Amino acid sequence: MRIEVICTGDEVLTGKTINTNFSFMTQRLEDVGLEVRWGTTVGDDRETLLEAFKVASARADAVIVNGGLGPTVDDLSQEVAARAAGVELVLNEEWLTRMEAHFQRRARVMPANNRKQAMLPATVDILDNPIGTACGFTLPIGKARFFFTPGVPREMRRMIDEQVIPRLLAMSGISATLHLKRFHSYGIGESRADTLLTGIEAMVPDGTVKLGFRAHYPQLETKLAVRGVDQADIERKLAPVVAEVRKHLGNFILAEDDQTLEGVIVSALRQRGGSIAVAETATGGQIAARLATHIEGTQVFRQGAIASSAESLGNLLGASPSDFSAAGAAQLAKAARQQSKASHGLAVLLQIDEGPDRVDLGGTIFLAIATEGGAVTRQAKMRGGRGWVLQGAVEMGLDCLRRHLFDLPIDEKIDFEIA
Amino acid sequence: MRIEVICTGDEVLTGKTINTNFSFMTQRLEDVGLEVRWGTTVGDDRETLLEAFKVASARADAVIVNGGLGPTVDDLSQEVAARAAGVELVLNEEWLTRMEAHFQRRARVMPANNRKQAMLPATVDILDNPIGTACGFTLPIGKARFFFTPGVPREMRRMIDEQVIPRLLAMSGISATLHLKRFHSYGIGESRADTLLTGIEAMVPDGTVKLGFRAHYPQLETKLAVRGVDQADIERKLAPVVAEVRKHLGNFILAEDDQTLEGVIVSALRQRGGSIAVAETATGGQIAARLATHIEGTQVFRQGAIASSAESLGNLLGASPSDFSAAGAAQLAKAARQQSKASHGLAVLLQIDEGPDRVDLGGTIFLAIATEGGAVTRQAKMRGGRGWVLQGAVEMGLDCLRRHLFDLPIDEKIDFEIA
Repeated sequence: MRIEVICTGDEVLTGKTINTNFSFMTQRLEDVGLEVRWGTTVGDDRETLLEAFKVASARADAVIVNGGLGPTVDDLSQEVAARAAGVELVLNEEWLTRMEAHFQRRARVMPANNRKQAMLPATVDILDNPIGTACGFTLPIGKARFFFTPGVPREMRRMIDEQVIPRLLAMSGISATLHLKRFHSYGIGESRADTLLTGIEAMVPDGTVKLGFRAHYPQLETKLAVRGVDQADIERKLAPVVAEVRKHLGNFILAEDDQTLEGVIVSALRQRGGSIAVAETATGGQIAARLATHIEGTQVFRQGAIASSAESLGNLLGASPSDFSAAGAAQLAKAARQQSKASHGLAVLLQIDEGPDRVDLGGTIFLAIATEGGAVTRQAKMRGGRGWVLQGAVEMGLDCLRRHLFDLPIDEKIDFEIA
Repeated sequence: MRIEVICTGDEVLTGKTINTNFSFMTQRLEDVGLEVRWGTTVGDDRETLLEAFKVASARADAVIVNGGLGPTVDDLSQEVAARAAGVELVLNEEWLTRMEAHFQRRARVMPANNRKQAMLPATVDILDNPIGTACGFTLPIGKARFFFTPGVPREMRRMIDEQVIPRLLAMSGISATLHLKRFHSYGIGESRADTLLTGIEAMVPDGTVKLGFRAHYPQLETKLAVRGVDQADIERKLAPVVAEVRKHLGNFILAEDDQTLEGVIVSALRQRGGSIAVAETATGGQIAARLATHIEGTQVFRQGAIASSAESLGNLLGASPSDFSAAGAAQLAKAARQQSKASHGLAVLLQIDEGPDRVDLGGTIFLAIATEGGAVTRQAKMRGGRGWVLQGAVEMGLDCLRRHLFDLPIDEKIDFEIA
């Protein structure tokens, strides 16, 4: 099936807004085995829009249009859709009622210009938008089926997942239920993960499980896209594959699906009534920032100390002079814990090599985690530019804390580490 | 002049890479008064590329193609350009020599597959790429002039500025020299800035100075795009307009052109042999992170203290118990300064209102800057969601520090502040 995505709007065309809607849509489609062949971007201009719809209707089987469904005069998608399809633009009573109810629930009167959002081509089926007033819809134009979606990212995302993808899968003869299972890891590169998981797709011989990766350093996302006749079918197929992924990626899996590393740490601490104090040097306080800005972070985050050397950190924490070593990190982790009365203290000391910022630069990390029972330490060397090493040290610090909280070894060698 | 931008590559089409090259190009073109009418994205596929080139050559006057100039088999731009133009693909000796010299300077032998990068359509003019091996080139296809640019962002950016834009301006009969002057501010909204600068374009009556804005909260960027016959002409036109912008935006201008707020602070501190210690609550340590991770930040950044309340901050800094107030902030700024022996202490205390995260939430900020001579304080209330208020508090803290370093008032009311 040939799919085209048309993004509309002057903000996107002129680059004022970076088009993340496009990448979301095409990633999501790829996850379920659908391939986008053309992306088109046009501004809020009647003639250009009409031409883009015509070009797409001639070459594609399915066309997703994003944006232009709002209440203002520069929102032109419904009008141009009607022109391109050669049908009238009419008031859709169903959507008008839905919008009025939407405003009523918020104890507000619907502004007059919102009425425009219920003016739709006569021949459409509605694509539900339960969280906004922009009405999604689908209709044939020429030989292609068009899907109109809102520009507001959260409304678009939900409509793509719940309304558009099932219809596209049905059009392409693929069974309609799908699921995306995701694993987040730190310490394994994409090529090694690929090798570790060789043959995993073949565990489900009908080809309905697809393995994919998305490397966004320092983390790697491993994805399993599964299609099935229903949720039970998906669960049945997925269970052995998920078990196999967990077995092979093992302790490197730091979170699954919508979980984050900091979220996993914060809830593990909360569950045991624990709390955390952090001491960092050369990481710019980014470990503390990740924990403290987590929505539930204030419940467990006690304090963060940042300084330009282990020595100044010791001074700030009222500890005896510390140096750049595993013992120094242990001393600082203990001091941070004691001073703040937190259950856990984490110290991460980073020293980036001297020299200009190049990909073959590197850095040394000493980290320690202190609890009532004492401190454990880890040291590592990494190769890479300044930003790369810094991000790696932040992730390693957080990941070792996670490992410690779940009684996993904190010294498992990672791919980004050099001997 | 009708311009189309074609972005190529499976990574971009499938959304694995977010297409920031497109937004850079179209912003840059808009800055000099050129308008992009179509954006097209296609993958690394011969037939789709050929079709995209043909469609563009029929509807546009100028077409910028991005990507596909690399040495690997999936880089198809030169080959498909030759097919679309109906000319042969030949070895360009000039570029081959340039590439060999490029490798020689790095004491390396050119790999055999790089030779492919010198295979160009017979009829091209080269667009110089002084920082890479991908050869930019321009040639006519159908009735349009095509410009081929590399996918590597820094190579693309330089080629667009130095090679493509002057040619596009010449094609459209606009004089060839241009300059973009930028001002960064915090505290003024786009609409007020627009009002403050009304009539400023008219100071240069020939219409060669264009005013624009780019709001990326918390900062606002004010842009002056100037065209002239040469650099002297541009400077002559720009001088009075720049003076007028500086007069109207005044103390709100925190940096110009490629400067950043943290960069301005770090160099002001360095110039006077000063240094900084930061104490923060509820900002997740992001003020310290901005200063400490600046490339020259280690030279002036002494320490950062982060805690969940003013009281815990006081404990961490060895100060007497502090509360959430201007006096509390002053006490903490002094303690941070004294403990670290820094010349300046900055304390920012933020309290976000209770309740679910909504746009009508808000927060209260107390901040203080301590020096040898004592402490100055500022307090403010802001309305907005959690992230908005947090980012605002970080920016306000840094901006007040800048103002203090340059002897400007730190209590000038900002647009995001409520009474």
